[in-house]
Amino acid sequence: MEKNQAVSLCQRYISENGKVVPEHESKGILQKYGVSTPVGAFVQTAEEAVRAAERLGYPVVLKAVSSKMLHKTELGGVFLNIVSAAEVKATVEQILAGFRNRNEELQGILVEEMVRSGAEFIVGIQDDPNFGPVIMLGSGGVLIDILDDVTFRMLPVDREEVRDMVEELKGKLFLKGYRGKSALNEEAFIEAVVNIGRLGIDAAGFYESMDFNPLVVTSEGAIAVDAKIVLPQNREICGISVAQPNTRNLDKFFAPQTVALIGASTTPDKIGYVVADSLINHDYAGKVYPITKGGREIFGLKSYENLSDLPEKIDLAVVVVGLPLVPDILKQCRDLQIPAVLIISGGGKELGGSTADLEKEIHRKAIEYGIRVIGPNCIGCFNAENRFDAFFQTHERMVRPGMGNIAFTTQSGTYGCSFLEEFEDVGVSKMISYGNRVDVDEADMITYLAQDPTTRALAAYVEGIGDGRKFIGAAREAILSSKKPIVLYKSGRTKRSALAAQSHTGAYGGTYGIYQGAFKQAGILAVDSYEELAAAAKALSLQNPAAGTGISMISNGAGPMVNAIDLFEKYGLEMAKPLPATIQKMEDHFPPFYICKNPVDVTGSATSDDYRFAMECLLEDPNVHVIMNWFVFQDTPLDEAIVPILDKINSVSEKPILCGAIGGPYTEKMSKAIEAVGVPVFRTAHTWIAAANALVGWGKVLRRNAPVAQSTK
Amino acid sequence: MEKNQAVSLCQRYISENGKVVPEHESKGILQKYGVSTPVGAFVQTAEEAVRAAERLGYPVVLKAVSSKMLHKTELGGVFLNIVSAAEVKATVEQILAGFRNRNEELQGILVEEMVRSGAEFIVGIQDDPNFGPVIMLGSGGVLIDILDDVTFRMLPVDREEVRDMVEELKGKLFLKGYRGKSALNEEAFIEAVVNIGRLGIDAAGFYESMDFNPLVVTSEGAIAVDAKIVLPQNREICGISVAQPNTRNLDKFFAPQTVALIGASTTPDKIGYVVADSLINHDYAGKVYPITKGGREIFGLKSYENLSDLPEKIDLAVVVVGLPLVPDILKQCRDLQIPAVLIISGGGKELGGSTADLEKEIHRKAIEYGIRVIGPNCIGCFNAENRFDAFFQTHERMVRPGMGNIAFTTQSGTYGCSFLEEFEDVGVSKMISYGNRVDVDEADMITYLAQDPTTRALAAYVEGIGDGRKFIGAAREAILSSKKPIVLYKSGRTKRSALAAQSHTGAYGGTYGIYQGAFKQAGILAVDSYEELAAAAKALSLQNPAAGTGISMISNGAGPMVNAIDLFEKYGLEMAKPLPATIQKMEDHFPPFYICKNPVDVTGSATSDDYRFAMECLLEDPNVHVIMNWFVFQDTPLDEAIVPILDKINSVSEKPILCGAIGGPYTEKMSKAIEAVGVPVFRTAHTWIAAANALVGWGKVLRRNAPVAQSTK
Repeated sequence: MEKNQAVSLCQRYISENGKVVPEHESKGILQKYGVSTPVGAFVQTAEEAVRAAERLGYPVVLKAVSSKMLHKTELGGVFLNIVSAAEVKATVEQILAGFRNRNEELQGILVEEMVRSGAEFIVGIQDDPNFGPVIMLGSGGVLIDILDDVTFRMLPVDREEVRDMVEELKGKLFLKGYRGKSALNEEAFIEAVVNIGRLGIDAAGFYESMDFNPLVVTSEGAIAVDAKIVLPQNREICGISVAQPNTRNLDKFFAPQTVALIGASTTPDKIGYVVADSLINHDYAGKVYPITKGGREIFGLKSYENLSDLPEKIDLAVVVVGLPLVPDILKQCRDLQIPAVLIISGGGKELGGSTADLEKEIHRKAIEYGIRVIGPNCIGCFNAENRFDAFFQTHERMVRPGMGNIAFTTQSGTYGCSFLEEFEDVGVSKMISYGNRVDVDEADMITYLAQDPTTRALAAYVEGIGDGRKFIGAAREAILSSKKPIVLYKSGRTKRSALAAQSHTGAYGGTYGIYQGAFKQAGILAVDSYEELAAAAKALSLQNPAAGTGISMISNGAGPMVNAIDLFEKYGLEMAKPLPATIQKMEDHFPPFYICKNPVDVTGSATSDDYRFAMECLLEDPNVHVIMNWFVFQDTPLDEAIVPILDKINSVSEKPILCGAIGGPYTEKMSKAIEAVGVPVFRTAHTWIAAANALVGWGKVLRRNAPVAQSTK
Repeated sequence: MEKNQAVSLCQRYISENGKVVPEHESKGILQKYGVSTPVGAFVQTAEEAVRAAERLGYPVVLKAVSSKMLHKTELGGVFLNIVSAAEVKATVEQILAGFRNRNEELQGILVEEMVRSGAEFIVGIQDDPNFGPVIMLGSGGVLIDILDDVTFRMLPVDREEVRDMVEELKGKLFLKGYRGKSALNEEAFIEAVVNIGRLGIDAAGFYESMDFNPLVVTSEGAIAVDAKIVLPQNREICGISVAQPNTRNLDKFFAPQTVALIGASTTPDKIGYVVADSLINHDYAGKVYPITKGGREIFGLKSYENLSDLPEKIDLAVVVVGLPLVPDILKQCRDLQIPAVLIISGGGKELGGSTADLEKEIHRKAIEYGIRVIGPNCIGCFNAENRFDAFFQTHERMVRPGMGNIAFTTQSGTYGCSFLEEFEDVGVSKMISYGNRVDVDEADMITYLAQDPTTRALAAYVEGIGDGRKFIGAAREAILSSKKPIVLYKSGRTKRSALAAQSHTGAYGGTYGIYQGAFKQAGILAVDSYEELAAAAKALSLQNPAAGTGISMISNGAGPMVNAIDLFEKYGLEMAKPLPATIQKMEDHFPPFYICKNPVDVTGSATSDDYRFAMECLLEDPNVHVIMNWFVFQDTPLDEAIVPILDKINSVSEKPILCGAIGGPYTEKMSKAIEAVGVPVFRTAHTWIAAANALVGWGKVLRRNAPVAQSTK
């Protein structure tokens, strides 16, 4: 009903080549959605304006209305605080004079009551190229100028989500009753925003953006004093994507029985040589068919000149030849029913120009032929279980990690290499570097990994996301249904680095605010750097989510703890308050110079058994949810006995245990020994805390979604 | 002249047990210092008040004045916007009624003009326990409530420093003409703040704090609408410390010819055993005399029961026995003319209670006897040149670094260990862990290291600073006269971590804002974590300061560059804009798929020679001041030839070169090879950028202070 009205309103002015829906009509539709606007009248003449003003009571506001003009300045401005009939008349004449030579562009004049003062907020809706309809809520006035005090969500939003948004604003202060003023009607405000959001969803596809600035909140209600619905101008409207993740044949990228390597080479250092080495000379047991120009033998394997020469059906074609050859290769793959193609080769849209067209062609053909494509411009996939990889990094230069339970998807091949090497001992389940993603995208991969029995948690590095709505849907499903955490680092946040990313994988960086809001909606654990990503991934791989927010620390050296606690504010973490009985128990047991509170400072005299005792005390304390040990392994009384102690405690503890240590070879040896029993060790205070934050955050996501079934909002 | 008046004003009300200087007198002294205040009159009766109001013109403001009351609420409030004689009379009667039973506490009533509206700022002065008189400048209104929009400096301040302070405030927006309003008189504002600062210095020692809130800035000038000078109440006033750094005998801690080890032990794992091992069994060539209870031989060395038994004069006594024995040991040292004592033992003021008294006694005795003391509660000193150390960390567990040029002073022994091991290859000159600093403090050490020919740059980890003014003076001298950069991480910033620090080394954490301001004044390069500290130290040790702010990047893998550029905003860094000729030169040379801008993306196909070419192009470009290479060593075409290339370029380049790489054993091998030729390699985008920031910051400090001689302000 309202939806039809909203859509036909937009359609009507689109068909008339309008730039915006005229203000009085925008406000009319707002009212239908239950949002208050100032009482007013839409008039054509000075006489009508005066009559309306007398009826409303002075002071009034006058505005010219036109569907052809985007900006208020073009309209001659807004005339506030008009107090008499004479002034109304003069103002109308001024407006009419301004339109003298473009009479047809003036729809009429809006006469409105002056809205009593209150706190000003900004509500905006925009059709985002990645996410479609998103809503922005911000503070008005100095806070938005100085602070960018805004927050975003993907639409639709419900009351709880809007409440979260309000809580994120610094400007919420005004709602609670600032400096002796009375509290404002926060509920009416929230309701207005939810209703505006409904309009944004209903009219999706038919507008470019909407501005409600200001939305004035008083102690009585919330009034949209201005309303502008901007119609589609020069760009494609995204609307609400209904694309669904597609996992068909993704297993061919990880567990192919037969692989064709198109562009295999016998020249050392060539990419086609290294990839052949990776496929043929190591632990992957599948059958590999090299395709070369000359048909020379490679590492003792017969090679072929053409795909069509191969003696059996191929699961996966790996492509390392130039991108211009790929459309033809795809055609051959269709003919040979090869279901999956991994394109390592670069030279795609990151260069701009015609290569972008080439990628589009590859995309079209992939869809048309029903072939799944990963890449181009990537390092490809790794499966720790069957040791499949097609990396152009030699084993001498890049370690392949052992079997673990974390999957890593990355737009950057460089970070793919880093992650694999960093997780040598902890292990991974699968890794995918997907570069320019012409076909298989983040959502497809997440959905696949959510169903992958060897994967317990997902880590993702992204520079830009293609279909944001599809991505968020897939992430929410993985998190809420499959109960697998996703930790994600989205880089390319500032304009500068978004540009760098664009020349890298052609990603559209967008602004991070919209991503951030959408990540929250999905329950994604968003982090701010690659280090944090790797730290969180290690913690989520090895430890349980935290059942609460209480963090405890034990150390024989306080410096890193002080550094770590400095970071609590940034992450919103809290030190646990142990029970008095817990403190007493430690005080009774330890020498008087140990400091028995949280953090527990067991001093340079600490033995491994001291750590054991302190951990056991904290494990029993209901106020403690995370146990964090920092070890100064350089200090003598602490010894190797800490490893079996941690092993034992870790095997019985539901509470996560996170360790930290920094130093040279001995410290590194100890840290590795501890990680070998499943307890992660971090090398900086920062990553130690980032790990704790991930487990606390994952616990919160699980608890928030525990009692009710998956939200369908 | 004004100074005498300011001091005697405070003294007068201190002698009368006043809590504050009465407002009219505070404003009177402000005027003497050239600061405008509202026109007004100080009266005793309603009749006088009416006469004054008529003279001033309505509306007026009425305030009760008392030296006995700290808060306006006690005074019955401020009465604004009084518009008639009748209202004046009624208000005065109301004020008098409020003081009915405490008549002697009312000094009189201040009648003032209403100040026309303008932007409100807050100026505060406080006697800080660490720094003495400091000035705070802040935005009024919502910005201070929401943002803590304040900045501090140690007094005195000159116009340039106040201008810097204003630039740091978000609220500066109002000064520049906000939202169509006219610009305000910024110069008058700055002058008022400088003058208030003069008052703060002149009256130092005689007040606890001063509040000028608001200081209203209009297009015409700046007016202190309120003025409160709070007199010393319950705590000791710090005032202006005149303490000077004392480097006497500090060389004994680093180059002793003879060392007595008090508390040597033959029991392995005892601290007295490990310290004996460190002193006796490794490369330190000085003479070591173990003092033990039993007099048993240690590592083949004769030991002694008493200090007085030793056969020669001792340069340094190292103490590992319990703290209660130390006062007596100091007495013996005095008798034997031992000039320096290093107290490793803990159990000092970090435990609270009587141990704090013990430390005070040690401090008194050290001063009285003229003995220099480092510690207690520390790991002691290290001199890379002569290999002297008295660490209780074994060589098996903790690597001692080679000879380098960076000195590290640290309140945390743990970070001392970390630093030494992290700098194994880069090397250090000296390291000092000083724990609870009962005698030798940061300022003494900085001054000593500023004069140390083996030290080129200083790194410092502090949790709290004793005499801040002495410290800043020493730092400024080292930076401006000795041209040695100081990079410093001050932890214990939040209340939480300040508490943790207190239980650690008994440091008073204070708030970081004051430290931050003082660090800026000295030209200290302040960082936000231990990782940043170590990264900056490595860069400053190996590379030149940047001659400008233009940063360039080259990489064969873009991910970490995107991450790095995301951090530019936080650090205030800028990407260089290379000359078109530079870009052209690269485009002519490189394959078309290399992306020749800044950053230079040489793609996975990059060879070592490609890096050479790109670096040489950027070296010649006057817009480029820092060259940053990120290496993906996992990618094959890049090879070991990069090491001699970097060696050669580094040996001729005035511009700093900073590299980054992340990965496993091969990457680590390559990174070490590069560092061996003097080019630092960082393992995270974050530390890579922190290093660049340090070199850019150091360049700025040098340029700012280059043309004029050392400022004496």
